[in-house]
Amino acid sequence: MPQQQLSDITTIFLILLFMLSLFPDVFHSLWTLPLSYIFSKSSLPSPADTTTIATMSWFQKQITLPAKSRGSYLITDQILSALPEIQEYKVGLLNLFVQHTSCALSLNENWDENVRADMSDALDRIAPDYGAKGEALYRHDAEGPDDMPAHIKSALIGASVTIPIKDGKLATGTWQGIWYLEFRASKHRRNIIATIQGDKGQKA
Amino acid sequence: MPQQQLSDITTIFLILLFMLSLFPDVFHSLWTLPLSYIFSKSSLPSPADTTTIATMSWFQKQITLPAKSRGSYLITDQILSALPEIQEYKVGLLNLFVQHTSCALSLNENWDENVRADMSDALDRIAPDYGAKGEALYRHDAEGPDDMPAHIKSALIGASVTIPIKDGKLATGTWQGIWYLEFRASKHRRNIIATIQGDKGQKA
Amino acid sequence: MPQQQLSDITTIFLILLFMLSLFPDVFHSLWTLPLSYIFSKSSLPSPADTTTIATMSWFQKQITLPAKSRGSYLITDQILSALPEIQEYKVGLLNLFVQHTSCALSLNENWDENVRADMSDALDRIAPDYGAKGEALYRHDAEGPDDMPAHIKSALIGASVTIPIKDGKLATGTWQGIWYLEFRASKHRRNIIATIQGDKGQKA
Repeated sequence: MPQQQLSDITTIFLILLFMLSLFPDVFHSLWTLPLSYIFSKSSLPSPADTTTIATMSWFQKQITLPAKSRGSYLITDQILSALPEIQEYKVGLLNLFVQHTSCALSLNENWDENVRADMSDALDRIAPDYGAKGEALYRHDAEGPDDMPAHIKSALIGASVTIPIKDGKLATGTWQGIWYLEFRASKHRRNIIATIQGDKGQKA
Repeated sequence: MPQQQLSDITTIFLILLFMLSLFPDVFHSLWTLPLSYIFSKSSLPSPADTTTIATMSWFQKQITLPAKSRGSYLITDQILSALPEIQEYKVGLLNLFVQHTSCALSLNENWDENVRADMSDALDRIAPDYGAKGEALYRHDAEGPDDMPAHIKSALIGASVTIPIKDGKLATGTWQGIWYLEFRASKHRRNIIATIQGDKGQKA
Repeated sequence: MPQQQLSDITTIFLILLFMLSLFPDVFHSLWTLPLSYIFSKSSLPSPADTTTIATMSWFQKQITLPAKSRGSYLITDQILSALPEIQEYKVGLLNLFVQHTSCALSLNENWDENVRADMSDALDRIAPDYGAKGEALYRHDAEGPDDMPAHIKSALIGASVTIPIKDGKLATGTWQGIWYLEFRASKHRRNIIATIQGDKGQKA
């Protein structure tokens, strides 16, 4: 009789063990079933997705340039040392945007400083402070005769540059450097918003 | 007596089976616990990464400006009200692109309307309709003397601006506004393609 | 004796329970092993994820233009045939960046070649080789009188253009073409870095 009773219990154990071994999550699932209606069940992407996508990235930083008066300045080294993050991007774009309307950013010759002096002079001829006979040219002169010409030069050259990134480096040509052109006669401190976007690829 | 002894063992079995069925990984976890301190668990990206990524987004919209004749116009408010989507982006870029070759977009002074009048006049001096002695300057004059100068001004100022987005706002400076410069004498209706891209971050 | 028999069964139970508790998936894995050869086990991302995320994409390519001397050239067809990848993007941006400082890229009139001739002449008036009385204007003249004017024109027009992509096509206006402006008198071969980024959307 005990033998027979044992057999009954053994049968139940065997069935339970079988179910557990073949469907290890069956009781756990049944038990937690009500909870799954309460908590949403992870809308997280699968690991595979994450790997492909996780490498798209944005980075933004404000850079303040040292105060300068009228002139053209090469700032490539300053920008590169402020943005070591460029090295993390396999492919991407760097946007540099100056938050002012009387200076500009450009890409130009990075070797001969005479090019920078000539550029400032040429822009003075294109947008002069006074007319050929010394006459006033502008309605807007609140901050002096160099005020309005600075706005004109800023419109002509532009407030931002966009530079491709390739294999962790700016894809600029051999002779291309990043220029900051200050158009006001007196010293001004200028802010640049640097925005990097791209694909970090395998390196991420 | 055997019956009683059996009952003891059955109780232990039942408890173990219960634990296994309800928490199928409990013993496995306990057993492999020491290993988890040796091997770093999961090279899987953390949920944080996923959050950063799933929020990358693009948005594009055509904006038609009201018809205007020659002049410089401040369109910041118009652009912002047409693009409430900017507020959704934690970090990004807005590209505004005008689909025409005799007008331009720029970033410039947003306070004194004299700056806008002076700008139009200065561009007329840089790319005049006629030479200093009234002589014709251009081969291309099909649509009048203001036709070719408009193309020149468009090349000088540019058809597009790219503006960084930071925390749901355009990261423009205090005095920077978005300008639409119309170079044709007669009224023209102009289309702008606005492209927003960026990371919506936590807000998404 | 029943005691002894019980002990045997208990031993089997204990072994099975031990295996289950330490390797909870062992029986399940063995049981479903043949199935894993029939059904591929899908590490594939779910459709929902792919649509939102996996379609963000970057593409970058160097394009070398045929050598040209001073002039304005329409290169729309050349760029489009070098970049069939544009068709894959539902929404995006194309950035064309020329790696040189004495030529430029622009968007301008794509129909009348007189516009291109007039443009080159107008830029010569804005940044002339010599002053009005034939006097030298520039410190930097190592490569001839057209050297410094080329740098000035490059700063005025710009080294890059950014063009929106919409439904697999450049969203340029009817009369807009991509221009390459060469400012040096002698022939030069120029490199362009083309960077496409965007959302490939449903097409991917």
